Amino acid sequence: MSITRRISSIAPSLTLAITAKAKALKAEGKSVIGFGAGEPDFNTPQHIIDAAKKALDDGCTKYTPSSGLPALRKKIAEKFKEENNLDYDPSQIIVSSGAKHSIFNAMFALIEEGDEVIIPSPYWLTYPEVVNVCGGKCVFVEGHKENHFKVMPEDIKKAITPKTKMLVFNSPSNPTGAVYTEEEIRAIGKVVEEAGIYVLSDEIYSKLIYDGVKHFSIAQVSEKLKEKTVIVNGVSKTYAMTGWRIGWLAAPKDVAKAIDSFQSHATSNPSSISQYATLAALSGSEAELNAMRDVFNDRRKYMISRIRAIQGLDCIEPDGAFYIMLVVKNLYGKRFNGRKINGSMDVADMLLEKGVAVVPGVAFGDDECVRLSYAISKEDIGVGLDRIEEFVKEVF
Amino acid sequence: MSITRRISSIAPSLTLAITAKAKALKAEGKSVIGFGAGEPDFNTPQHIIDAAKKALDDGCTKYTPSSGLPALRKKIAEKFKEENNLDYDPSQIIVSSGAKHSIFNAMFALIEEGDEVIIPSPYWLTYPEVVNVCGGKCVFVEGHKENHFKVMPEDIKKAITPKTKMLVFNSPSNPTGAVYTEEEIRAIGKVVEEAGIYVLSDEIYSKLIYDGVKHFSIAQVSEKLKEKTVIVNGVSKTYAMTGWRIGWLAAPKDVAKAIDSFQSHATSNPSSISQYATLAALSGSEAELNAMRDVFNDRRKYMISRIRAIQGLDCIEPDGAFYIMLVVKNLYGKRFNGRKINGSMDVADMLLEKGVAVVPGVAFGDDECVRLSYAISKEDIGVGLDRIEEFVKEVF
Repeated sequence: MSITRRISSIAPSLTLAITAKAKALKAEGKSVIGFGAGEPDFNTPQHIIDAAKKALDDGCTKYTPSSGLPALRKKIAEKFKEENNLDYDPSQIIVSSGAKHSIFNAMFALIEEGDEVIIPSPYWLTYPEVVNVCGGKCVFVEGHKENHFKVMPEDIKKAITPKTKMLVFNSPSNPTGAVYTEEEIRAIGKVVEEAGIYVLSDEIYSKLIYDGVKHFSIAQVSEKLKEKTVIVNGVSKTYAMTGWRIGWLAAPKDVAKAIDSFQSHATSNPSSISQYATLAALSGSEAELNAMRDVFNDRRKYMISRIRAIQGLDCIEPDGAFYIMLVVKNLYGKRFNGRKINGSMDVADMLLEKGVAVVPGVAFGDDECVRLSYAISKEDIGVGLDRIEEFVKEVF
Repeated sequence: MSITRRISSIAPSLTLAITAKAKALKAEGKSVIGFGAGEPDFNTPQHIIDAAKKALDDGCTKYTPSSGLPALRKKIAEKFKEENNLDYDPSQIIVSSGAKHSIFNAMFALIEEGDEVIIPSPYWLTYPEVVNVCGGKCVFVEGHKENHFKVMPEDIKKAITPKTKMLVFNSPSNPTGAVYTEEEIRAIGKVVEEAGIYVLSDEIYSKLIYDGVKHFSIAQVSEKLKEKTVIVNGVSKTYAMTGWRIGWLAAPKDVAKAIDSFQSHATSNPSSISQYATLAALSGSEAELNAMRDVFNDRRKYMISRIRAIQGLDCIEPDGAFYIMLVVKNLYGKRFNGRKINGSMDVADMLLEKGVAVVPGVAFGDDECVRLSYAISKEDIGVGLDRIEEFVKEVF
C-alpha cells in the first residue's frame, strides 16, 4: 500500500455528490438556491482591506515568527482577558492558517493512537475525520432535540472511560446553532475537570450569538480546567475573512510549546499579509461586525417563522452561528415523484431537483435533519423556502 | 503524558540559542552581521503586489477549493510542461500554505510507522524532523565534499532495505548549494526506480542556479519514476514571496487525491489573496527574477573569492540556492580567547562575539562546516567576512 493508513481512513465527503450535482444543474442554467454556505456572504470590512494594502506597501511580505507576529499574539491574549477574563501569556497563543489548522494542531499534539475522544452529536464533520487521522477513536454523545440539540453533563460522564483523552466542545455549534448557557457549561466543566481530560473548545462562532445570549468559554469554569483546555477561534466567521486563513489557539504552556515546535516544521507562519489584516481587525471598531450580526439575526427570525408555518417540517431555534437544522423526519417513508424518502441524503437529493441545495444531516451524525445556512440573502432564503414548501406539499 | 509521542520527538532547535544570543547582542546596540537568512532580501516584485491589491478590491477574500484555485493549479501544470516537459493534470497539483506545508503533506501521506527514509547529508533540518513526526526512520547517506557534497548512486543503493519507502532529494540543495547534473540525476533515478521507492524531490531553489547550469527534475528520468515522485516547489525563494506562504506539490494521482482529502480537513485552502498573487507571479515576466539571480550570483562569486583568500578556511563552490558551506574543521582543536574549539557550535558561538551570526553545520548533519547565506547586501557580506578573517587570524 502506498498511502498511509492514517490518511486512507479519511471518508469521502458525503456532501461532494450533492455539490457536484448542484454545480451541474447551475451549469445547465437551472436556478439553484444554495443553503450550503459555510461562510458569511459579506465582504471583509474596508478598514481591514486597507490594512492589508498598507502591509503590502510596507514590504511586510517576509517570514514572521512561525507561531505569528508577536504584536498579534499579544493582541489576541489581551482580547481573551478583555472578553473572557482569561489570562494567557502571548507564548500560549499559536496563530495558524485558519481555525481548522488550529484544530488539527491541537488534536495532533494531544491524541495518541487508541485515545478516545468524546464528540457531541450533531457535530462539525471535520472533528471525527481529524480524530481518526490522529489514530484516536470517536465516542459520539447524542444531543437532545428537546434541549436544543445540547448534550447533558450526565451523558458525557457516562461516555468517559480510562481511555478518554479529550472532549470536543463547540458552542455556538455548527451545525445546530445551539449555544450552551454558563450554567450548562459549568455543569459539563465539572464532569470534565473531575475526569482530568482535555477539552478542545471550538469557539469560532463566539461573536455570532443573537438576542442578548452571552458567550461563555469552558476555560472560564476554573483555573484547573483552563489548564486542560485548548480554545480555538479565528477571524473567518466574525469578520467575513474566510479566505485569509487566520485562526489561533490558546493552550496550556506545555501544549502551546509543543505545537509551536511542530508548526515551525509542518507549515511555518500563516500569511504575513493576513496576519497584519487580522491585527487591524482585532484592533478596530466592531461596528461592521455588529451590523453583520443584525442582518444574520433578521434572516434567522424570518427563517424560523417561515419554517414553522410549513406543515410537516420543524426546526429547533438556533441562538448562534448561521445555521438551522430543519427536521425532516416526518417525510420519511413517504414518496416524492414515486421515489421513497429514506433519509436525509434522499431529501437533499430531491430538494436539489426542486432547485434547493442543502447539506444532509447524516454528514453531521443526525439523519433526521438537513442543514440550512442563512449566510445568503433574505431574498434567496425566501425563494428557497418557497421551493421547500412546494416540495413538502408534493410529498404529503 | 499529555503531549503525543510524535510531537514530543521534535528536537529543540540547535540554532535557537544562537538566534537568541544574536538578538540580545543587537538589543545592546552591538553590530551583528546576520549570515543566517533563509529568505531573499528583495521586495516582492511590484506587479505581484498589485495583483494582490486587485484581488482585495475584487473581493477575492472567500474560501477557494481547498487544494487551490482551479486557474492556479492549471497554470502550475502548464509550467511543469513548459519548463520540465512533465505532464500533470491539474488534479495532480495541490497548492498549500508554503512548500514546507507541501513537504509535510507528502510525508504524512506516504510515510508509515517504521518506514525508512533516505536523506542525503548535509540536509535541510526540517526533513528529519517531519520524518520522525510521521513515525519514519531517517537513514542518512553522506555527501562527498570532493563531489560538491553530492551523494553517489551506489551510496543510495547500499542504504536501501526492504523497509525503504522514500528518498528525499533536494537539488539545488539547502544548505550546500549543490546542483546535481542531469547525468548524476539519471544515475540516481535508475537506482531508485529499480528499488521501487518514492522520491520526494524538493525543487524550491530550481530557479536560483548560476552560470548556465541547468535544473533537471528527477521526475524527468522516466515515466515509471515520475509515478513514484512527488515534486515540491513554490514562490517563496524564486519571487521573494516568503511571507505569502504558497507552495505546491505535483504527485501521482492516488497520492494527490489522498492529500487533497487530507488538506481539506487539516487546513483547507491557503490564503486566497496569496493565491491570486501567485497566479500573477507565474503568469508575468521573469525579468525581476533574473535581475535578483544576477545579484545573488555577484555576491556568490565575491564570497567565494574572499573565503578562498583566508588561510585556514575553505569552501565548496555552490552552483545554486543562496548558501555557502564554510569548511571550518581546520580550526578544531585550536583556541579562541582561551577556549578550545570543538565543533561548529563553538565556531558559531565565537563568531557571534565577533559580530557575525552563522548557522552551525551540525544542524544540517555536517559538523565540519558553518552555513553562510548570501541573501544579504554585498556591503554586509564584506564587513562580515572581514570579521571572520580577523577571527581566524586570532585563532591561528
